Amino acid sequence: MENSSTFDNMTGLTHDRPVQTSSFCQQVASVDAAGNYDVVNNVVIPTPGAPDPRAQNSLRQSWEMNYQEAAIYLQEGENNDKFFTHPRNAQALSAYLFAHNHLFYVMELLTAVLLMLLSLSEAPAVPFLRLDVYVHASLELLALATVAFELCMKLRWLGFHTFIRHKRTMVKASVLFIQFIEAIVVLVRQTSHLRVTRALRPIFLVDCRYCGAVRRNLRQIFQSLPPFIDILLLLLFFMVIFAILGFCLFSANTADPYFSTLENSIVSLFVLVTTANFPDVMMPAYSKNRWSCIFFIVYLSIELYFIMNLLLAVVFDTFNGVEKMKFKSLLLHKRSAVEHAFQLLVGRQRPDGVCLKQFDGLMRFYRPRMTARDRFLTFKALNRSGASMLSLQDFYKLYEVIGLKWKARRSGEHWFDDLPRTAFLILKGINLLVKSKAFQYAMYLVVAINGIWILVETNMLNDGVAWTHVVPWSYIIFLTIYGVEVLLKITGLGPLKYFSSGWNLFDFSVTVFAFLGLIALAFDMEPFYFIVVLRPFQLLRLFKIKQRYRNVLDTMFELFPRMASLGLTLIIFYYSFAIVGMEFFADVVYPNCCNTSTVADSYRQINVTIGNRTILDEGYYYLNNFNNILSSFVTLFELTVVNNWYITMEGVTSQTTHWSRLYFMTFYIVTMVVMTIIVAFILDAFVFRMNYSRKNREPLDDPEDEKGIVFETEVSQTEALQTLDLYKHTLGVTNLSSLQDMCVALERSGHSSLVFLGRRSRTKSDLSMKMYEEEIQEWYEEYSRTNLQPDETSHRELDSPEVSAANSIN
Amino acid sequence: MENSSTFDNMTGLTHDRPVQTSSFCQQVASVDAAGNYDVVNNVVIPTPGAPDPRAQNSLRQSWEMNYQEAAIYLQEGENNDKFFTHPRNAQALSAYLFAHNHLFYVMELLTAVLLMLLSLSEAPAVPFLRLDVYVHASLELLALATVAFELCMKLRWLGFHTFIRHKRTMVKASVLFIQFIEAIVVLVRQTSHLRVTRALRPIFLVDCRYCGAVRRNLRQIFQSLPPFIDILLLLLFFMVIFAILGFCLFSANTADPYFSTLENSIVSLFVLVTTANFPDVMMPAYSKNRWSCIFFIVYLSIELYFIMNLLLAVVFDTFNGVEKMKFKSLLLHKRSAVEHAFQLLVGRQRPDGVCLKQFDGLMRFYRPRMTARDRFLTFKALNRSGASMLSLQDFYKLYEVIGLKWKARRSGEHWFDDLPRTAFLILKGINLLVKSKAFQYAMYLVVAINGIWILVETNMLNDGVAWTHVVPWSYIIFLTIYGVEVLLKITGLGPLKYFSSGWNLFDFSVTVFAFLGLIALAFDMEPFYFIVVLRPFQLLRLFKIKQRYRNVLDTMFELFPRMASLGLTLIIFYYSFAIVGMEFFADVVYPNCCNTSTVADSYRQINVTIGNRTILDEGYYYLNNFNNILSSFVTLFELTVVNNWYITMEGVTSQTTHWSRLYFMTFYIVTMVVMTIIVAFILDAFVFRMNYSRKNREPLDDPEDEKGIVFETEVSQTEALQTLDLYKHTLGVTNLSSLQDMCVALERSGHSSLVFLGRRSRTKSDLSMKMYEEEIQEWYEEYSRTNLQPDETSHRELDSPEVSAANSIN
Repeated sequence: MENSSTFDNMTGLTHDRPVQTSSFCQQVASVDAAGNYDVVNNVVIPTPGAPDPRAQNSLRQSWEMNYQEAAIYLQEGENNDKFFTHPRNAQALSAYLFAHNHLFYVMELLTAVLLMLLSLSEAPAVPFLRLDVYVHASLELLALATVAFELCMKLRWLGFHTFIRHKRTMVKASVLFIQFIEAIVVLVRQTSHLRVTRALRPIFLVDCRYCGAVRRNLRQIFQSLPPFIDILLLLLFFMVIFAILGFCLFSANTADPYFSTLENSIVSLFVLVTTANFPDVMMPAYSKNRWSCIFFIVYLSIELYFIMNLLLAVVFDTFNGVEKMKFKSLLLHKRSAVEHAFQLLVGRQRPDGVCLKQFDGLMRFYRPRMTARDRFLTFKALNRSGASMLSLQDFYKLYEVIGLKWKARRSGEHWFDDLPRTAFLILKGINLLVKSKAFQYAMYLVVAINGIWILVETNMLNDGVAWTHVVPWSYIIFLTIYGVEVLLKITGLGPLKYFSSGWNLFDFSVTVFAFLGLIALAFDMEPFYFIVVLRPFQLLRLFKIKQRYRNVLDTMFELFPRMASLGLTLIIFYYSFAIVGMEFFADVVYPNCCNTSTVADSYRQINVTIGNRTILDEGYYYLNNFNNILSSFVTLFELTVVNNWYITMEGVTSQTTHWSRLYFMTFYIVTMVVMTIIVAFILDAFVFRMNYSRKNREPLDDPEDEKGIVFETEVSQTEALQTLDLYKHTLGVTNLSSLQDMCVALERSGHSSLVFLGRRSRTKSDLSMKMYEEEIQEWYEEYSRTNLQPDETSHRELDSPEVSAANSIN
Repeated sequence: MENSSTFDNMTGLTHDRPVQTSSFCQQVASVDAAGNYDVVNNVVIPTPGAPDPRAQNSLRQSWEMNYQEAAIYLQEGENNDKFFTHPRNAQALSAYLFAHNHLFYVMELLTAVLLMLLSLSEAPAVPFLRLDVYVHASLELLALATVAFELCMKLRWLGFHTFIRHKRTMVKASVLFIQFIEAIVVLVRQTSHLRVTRALRPIFLVDCRYCGAVRRNLRQIFQSLPPFIDILLLLLFFMVIFAILGFCLFSANTADPYFSTLENSIVSLFVLVTTANFPDVMMPAYSKNRWSCIFFIVYLSIELYFIMNLLLAVVFDTFNGVEKMKFKSLLLHKRSAVEHAFQLLVGRQRPDGVCLKQFDGLMRFYRPRMTARDRFLTFKALNRSGASMLSLQDFYKLYEVIGLKWKARRSGEHWFDDLPRTAFLILKGINLLVKSKAFQYAMYLVVAINGIWILVETNMLNDGVAWTHVVPWSYIIFLTIYGVEVLLKITGLGPLKYFSSGWNLFDFSVTVFAFLGLIALAFDMEPFYFIVVLRPFQLLRLFKIKQRYRNVLDTMFELFPRMASLGLTLIIFYYSFAIVGMEFFADVVYPNCCNTSTVADSYRQINVTIGNRTILDEGYYYLNNFNNILSSFVTLFELTVVNNWYITMEGVTSQTTHWSRLYFMTFYIVTMVVMTIIVAFILDAFVFRMNYSRKNREPLDDPEDEKGIVFETEVSQTEALQTLDLYKHTLGVTNLSSLQDMCVALERSGHSSLVFLGRRSRTKSDLSMKMYEEEIQEWYEEYSRTNLQPDETSHRELDSPEVSAANSIN
């Protein structure tokens, strides 16, 4: 780039050279001729007219390098990787490429999952999964070695300095080190010691490429913490004040165990914030003096109804802010990545546009699976101005079009348009039938009747008679109706259109499940029982009728990925707490264990004789234990639901020490944070979505309407042939069948051009783009003011039509 | 107004005539000269130069009528009364005036409260408040007669047609009718029958003038209902589906009482949504098969964590919209009221401005308690343009300045500026001391030490020793420090400034209470015990330190009125449910009542012998009954908190019928609605407030800063004297001491003018005004487009400066 002025006059050359060369190549050059960065890729300057094959080859190599680096930039933009981790030289590049493909990611993930799953088989193991110490310790060592190998690759790619600066990686490395030593100790001693550090294992999972969403959630949780803690302090403060008050007021009552000491008072009031011991905690005092209820009413009004809601308000507010900031930074990061990539793709002759050739080269690295036709169509979709090259403004939209699935728009409306006349008429009739309102409402009616039928049938089973293995005739009738409906719809709409609607997919799968259930019933297969039982889910279809439900369910599907990642985040917290719980509380509770505690009843298991009948009076709570990781998870879920959690706490406490309460209280506060975040997320998402609907007055009336992002591109016959030619001769791409198919289709259709539709489903980011439309413009301006890079100064004439128009398609 | 053209040339006349005459006068006129509305108040047209006293008098009367009607319009605007209930003639006016003063309002309120309180003494009465049937029935008849009298006044004022059209009044009348008959029946039979209609009594309270906020809340609740019900149906739907599933899966297990029948399944899962029976409901199934926990986890995830939050989101969203709409309609209603009043106040000579004389006349009716000085200052505050008359634009701001408390700005900074030198220096020193950061933080330190001291002291009391009646020395020391602090602050800042800060008031009252506690301790007065116990609240002062807490607490105080009205709304629901509960479930539960139900343990009261010690094993839940209205309220509060509510439900159900569950489930759903609204309100208010702070970047750093609305008005000496003169001679107002005081103060100060400050605390409406600033402008435009009234056409030259400038101050 530095001596680009030398080549400024070389216009009209077929083989343009990149304005900026890949940093990998520069590095290579610098190795060859130390200190002399101006030597550009050992390229002999080609003379016009008679291109030297060696020079051409080397030039192509140089372009390839640029494509690759641009693809890496785009990848970094997509993954929100910071650019300071960008590979700096050829060696780093190879490590980068090794560490950035799905195979490597899957290995990373599997290792992390394996490490976490090991706790199923370690010391307090799930009975049927117990492994010998040397087996699970060896497995652990193996997994840890894999992690170490992955870290080495990262070190190679990042370089030592960047590696040390990267906090997450350093934490991972140190945890790895500790785990390694501990695993060896376990292997040597042939017995597990107190290994609380296992609680840190989720770090490996969090660091996986595929768990980016979990990382973001964790960051968001940590960002919401400061205001949360402030309000939490207020909560705890009132708790202590009321504990002192309660102790003073009620400790004189010997029948009141809840306020007998100050510690008991504090614990009782802590539990009371969760409402788990209400109204029991009030009862002894209440039975002595009816006015004592005022103490509890005031306490609950302040703590539960005011401060807890305040907590939600504060978190909700912070969450909103953080969401917006996150969206902004991601957007600007992507923009910057696109700019970097653009710099690498423009040629010296046309420094303000990317032509198809370069774009295609980029896509071959960035999306290797994409067909030549799709690459071409994506280029066309970006190229809104109609000029032959993409300006930077066009190129900014890259991330919006990259995920599109392209399909030629059908010339006819129906899939059966080409069939013979009779078939056409029949199918047309079916089509009209299944699209009619009457058909739809008839089906709703059938489903409703089915629902009532199931209810009545189940209610008649009340006498405890188990399932008969005779298939009830109602089952067969309704299933037949559903089956006919599915068949009609598939034939009427065509399989493609039918299966492209989420609701139809739901109908289809429920019907298939019901059919499988029928088979299970008919052939008397016990294990498939549950399928029969899932029948009532058929009724969910009824919720298609009302607009609001469709809205809610659609939003639910749009938000599902985020919800799943929040769930995973919760599971990671569970895992850590489960490990700690297992290490300290495994096997401490058992039937009749806690007879000295206040919750003895819940742990009791005795035979009681009433009249002349002996029945087993079970407390069952001994089942809520930390005896293995599965039980721990269930116990922790019960603690999350909060009701009666103090029974588990008191049971464990009575068998261990008072300090055990700290574990349970900490867990409560942590889940409260996570749950509040989840509530805030759902609130935010739905309120956002509803605002969006209001703002854009979406016509959400048609239930079969696909609500996604659609791009249209028209391709003319000449253009298609030209492109095919270009790909064949210039680019040397071998697999051109997709392009050839397009040309054939064009020819066969008889039209001079064909419209292609690119579709993808809408994401939260698309919604945000529309919601913050005005602010985004401001962000961009602010960004370009502060981030105006030296490279960009050479692109002042961005979008000037004369320049773009002067260039040809390649 | 119709023949106003006749008088158009009469400028320069001292006694101007109103453009529009009060509708009361018109009515009078129409009585005098039927059909001839043009005869304006029997006024003989005065001849210039020699005003006829009779004509003047009658003119004054005409103006007085106008003032009164304008005041009524303003009142209607303030109270959000629709204008179609505006009194139409002189007779209606007298009824209106009778029914619109605080005495009448208080009577209304007292009657309603008396009616509600009667349930304390009726049939299932609170023991020490029991009254004979003829006593409480007579009281009721008396109260109902009062209500009937109030209704008659309303009928007189509204006229029959409007009365019938007014829905709320009609409902009230019919309820009154039923109650009347029932009360007479009770009196005749000398015994209470099943009187569920008593549950309707809160209607009388809701209809009170002072309960406008409650009415608004109820309206908001009803408006949020449709989306709420939609989501509730989704919730119930999943409940039924899972009940069928659960019944199929778990009914085979005879040890599982929760899913033995379909009804039990539904009830169990309904209770499970409230989490009240978790994990117990899972335990029998879980102990048989560990994987059955999946059923419960999935159910809770869908119902509790998803749909319940969705409910909140939907209500929150609706609530937001309703809040905004409500604000808009109130604002426009007020604007319209101001316009109506303006029309009545302008004179024929100056049809586009209101001068002080008219304004003063209005205020004498609208705010009879206001002093002449304050009326004058309010006029000045409105009169921003500096012209001698208020234009309509000025007048629009009326509601913003009407509540201001006026005070002359002190010339000096301190209250002790006028004291002799020595005293001044000492007080100045104290002033600097109490304002210093060091002093503040020293006090925080003392409070913190006090807190720790109390905690340690209380903890040392753990051995159950009751309070000694010796005053602990620490108590005296800390109290002395606080006392000294209060005295220093009062002397340093001056009592006025000290008590104007909410935080200081809090400090002061806590210290006074502590002092009272000390006396109670010293003189051994048992009943005042609780004061001693309130000591820890002193610690609340610590929360002044941090910005966020100040913010939260300030917001809390700003929102307190709304919160209180929401609380009152909840109590009204409680009342109705309590009455129904008492009618059906009074005295159904008692110790050992429910031995056949699943919750027998909670109602058991037996002596258990463990070893050689006999202890009373109490279930206590028989205390949660509907035996009188106070118990019912406590029981309903327990049901609101939700935890273990099913024990109360099952207890009552086992003693009555299955249908009793309907009562409890309905109550749960109703409180869920109200509680969700409360949560939505708190969320909305805080998020709104935080956005407001961010948007306006408030300097909230100074804890002593008063955050209110402040208006400034400068009054010159000549102006003051002129005004005094005007009031004395022209208006004939007798009580002018306030104005005279002002003149004296002006003279004494030696300055030519004095600045007065008008303050009031900020309300939610002020915040909304600022938040919706831009939208408000749009609303106004839209409003004036659609509502352009014929009266306004005569005021096209609004705000034209020439017209205003031509007029003198009176």
